Amino acid sequence: MSQDDFAFAERFACLRLARTDGVGPVAFQHLVGRYGTAAKALAALPELARRAGRAPVTYTPEQAYAELTEGELMGATLLCVAEPGFPEALRVLDPPPPVIWALGDAALLHRRAVAVVGARVASAAGCRFARGLAGELGAAGLVIASGLARGVDAAAHEGALPTGTVAVLGGGIGDVYPPENAGLYRQIAERGCIVSESAPRRKAQAKDFPRRNRLISGLSLAVVVVEAELKSGSLITARMAAEQGREVLAVPGSPLDPRARGCNDLIRQGAAVCEGADDVLRAIEAIRGFRAPPPPAYVLGDEATPPELLERVFDLLSPTPVHVDELARQVGAPPGAVFAALVELSLAGRVELAPESMAMRA
Amino acid sequence: MSQDDFAFAERFACLRLARTDGVGPVAFQHLVGRYGTAAKALAALPELARRAGRAPVTYTPEQAYAELTEGELMGATLLCVAEPGFPEALRVLDPPPPVIWALGDAALLHRRAVAVVGARVASAAGCRFARGLAGELGAAGLVIASGLARGVDAAAHEGALPTGTVAVLGGGIGDVYPPENAGLYRQIAERGCIVSESAPRRKAQAKDFPRRNRLISGLSLAVVVVEAELKSGSLITARMAAEQGREVLAVPGSPLDPRARGCNDLIRQGAAVCEGADDVLRAIEAIRGFRAPPPPAYVLGDEATPPELLERVFDLLSPTPVHVDELARQVGAPPGAVFAALVELSLAGRVELAPESMAMRA
Repeated sequence: MSQDDFAFAERFACLRLARTDGVGPVAFQHLVGRYGTAAKALAALPELARRAGRAPVTYTPEQAYAELTEGELMGATLLCVAEPGFPEALRVLDPPPPVIWALGDAALLHRRAVAVVGARVASAAGCRFARGLAGELGAAGLVIASGLARGVDAAAHEGALPTGTVAVLGGGIGDVYPPENAGLYRQIAERGCIVSESAPRRKAQAKDFPRRNRLISGLSLAVVVVEAELKSGSLITARMAAEQGREVLAVPGSPLDPRARGCNDLIRQGAAVCEGADDVLRAIEAIRGFRAPPPPAYVLGDEATPPELLERVFDLLSPTPVHVDELARQVGAPPGAVFAALVELSLAGRVELAPESMAMRA
Repeated sequence: MSQDDFAFAERFACLRLARTDGVGPVAFQHLVGRYGTAAKALAALPELARRAGRAPVTYTPEQAYAELTEGELMGATLLCVAEPGFPEALRVLDPPPPVIWALGDAALLHRRAVAVVGARVASAAGCRFARGLAGELGAAGLVIASGLARGVDAAAHEGALPTGTVAVLGGGIGDVYPPENAGLYRQIAERGCIVSESAPRRKAQAKDFPRRNRLISGLSLAVVVVEAELKSGSLITARMAAEQGREVLAVPGSPLDPRARGCNDLIRQGAAVCEGADDVLRAIEAIRGFRAPPPPAYVLGDEATPPELLERVFDLLSPTPVHVDELARQVGAPPGAVFAALVELSLAGRVELAPESMAMRA
């Protein structure tokens, strides 16, 4: 089936389901898995959420239509996880992003890519290195992914403009940040590809950056960190890359340079040393594709979760994430039933689902 | 038995045997193992060498006496491998150095030590780092070993002067090189310890530096390389450290700094990242002593090697090192007999024995 064949109604339902309060990537994946299509899951939502204690705040058809119109007027394309045009690299993530917007050459999302990320307040040498590395990797046929931040990110995009670069935004398409990267943004939109998990023009918030970082590493065979202080956001990207089974490389630096601390620490933890493009090419040469996504961790029954199970699960939760299996042990119910309860509580806005089968009070 | 009880005659014989042409540490170890004492091995030498084709150039009693007199007049002490005062760290090397001279506080050779080595043409930052690291490790109770070279070595010694430092020379005691380190040499002789495998005042030659590096790493639980270009001598010290089972650490640096190349490459090959004293302390905290020396690789018989075996072994040799086992396969003789033949050929100056059971034409 081609992208055009992907029914408009299902696409529309995907967007509405993905944007519904309490439906993150985890709940989205399980609801579509349970009901077969986004449209059917969407139809089941009100009842599920009501039973969990609250009417769901679904994304209305008007909102979805407005988002689609806005994005398409900007020239962007909505890609839904279930459709054939969705990038394989993101489809295999656990969980995959339900929908992404792409502006520019979306074909770049299907090519072998490497992420080059790093400090916003980077040294001139760090930027020069990132630019050169991106150029060399681009010449070797790789797409360069990064986050359009100041410093290393911008330099990496610049170096890869002639050969292909993908910028993943924290906010929506059209939310250009920082302002000084507006020119670079336009060039990437024309010659590369801008990607976002958010609705067009939505302003980036702090919580969007881990999501953005997850997509940067997800799109890539390897993540190269160029200059990063300890506690830098680039280290989150590196950690996500490792969790996603991607290669992690770091550019070493002097212990006297605070901007090298994060990179040296990554190397200490097992990241490969990156002194140039050869190191990256060596790290990825054997990779022929992405790891298949893991099978669903929990098999959900068709039956509605008994209300008292919903409350017993909720009572066990706190703002600290806890694993579904642990909850299942404590309530003495099958993990699948507990997970279903968590999804329903999430729809009611009472629970937050995190990757790796963790849950906490919203 | 105390050091004083170690018979003067045996000490004298050790020195003569160790300084005899064709007797390197490998042959020394095997000859003393075969004959029981250095004196007996020395007595057997003329006959062994003659059968291998050449009269041996033994170190005469006059030469040995002159060396002992010279060293002791300088205030230095000769330490022989078989005597109780010989440093355990060096005794367990394979092969150990047969004799060393020590000037200054030889007790330092029995304490836990870490080597800090690196580029002669070091950056100011590299020297500062080495000096600080040596000071911190010294404060943590460790002796700092290095090679009294320009740059990193000198800085490491300086940093550890108050707490204890050992300088291993390529030449003999009194051969101060480079000249600008004369002041540092004097301070180490007074407050630390100067060590050499060579005869006092002997000028260092190129071939002495790998021997010196082997002692630097041998004396140490870990070797830290601070700044090293590719093909730096410090990398030889690091390789020897790894062969000796010592920990290897390297201080990372920017790929744009040529002086970081060797260190980054070491890290790529598995050296631990060193950003400060904590990394070193962590690397050695579990080490409670040195690995026992391996048992002799070959059991030598008491019988003299048949002359035709000597010649068949010699015919198979070239200037390229070959393993004793390989030679034994090719001549169809027991490895122990072939090794004995090689020791005898070495005494005749026709063969060079290398560590790890390798041999080549001299």
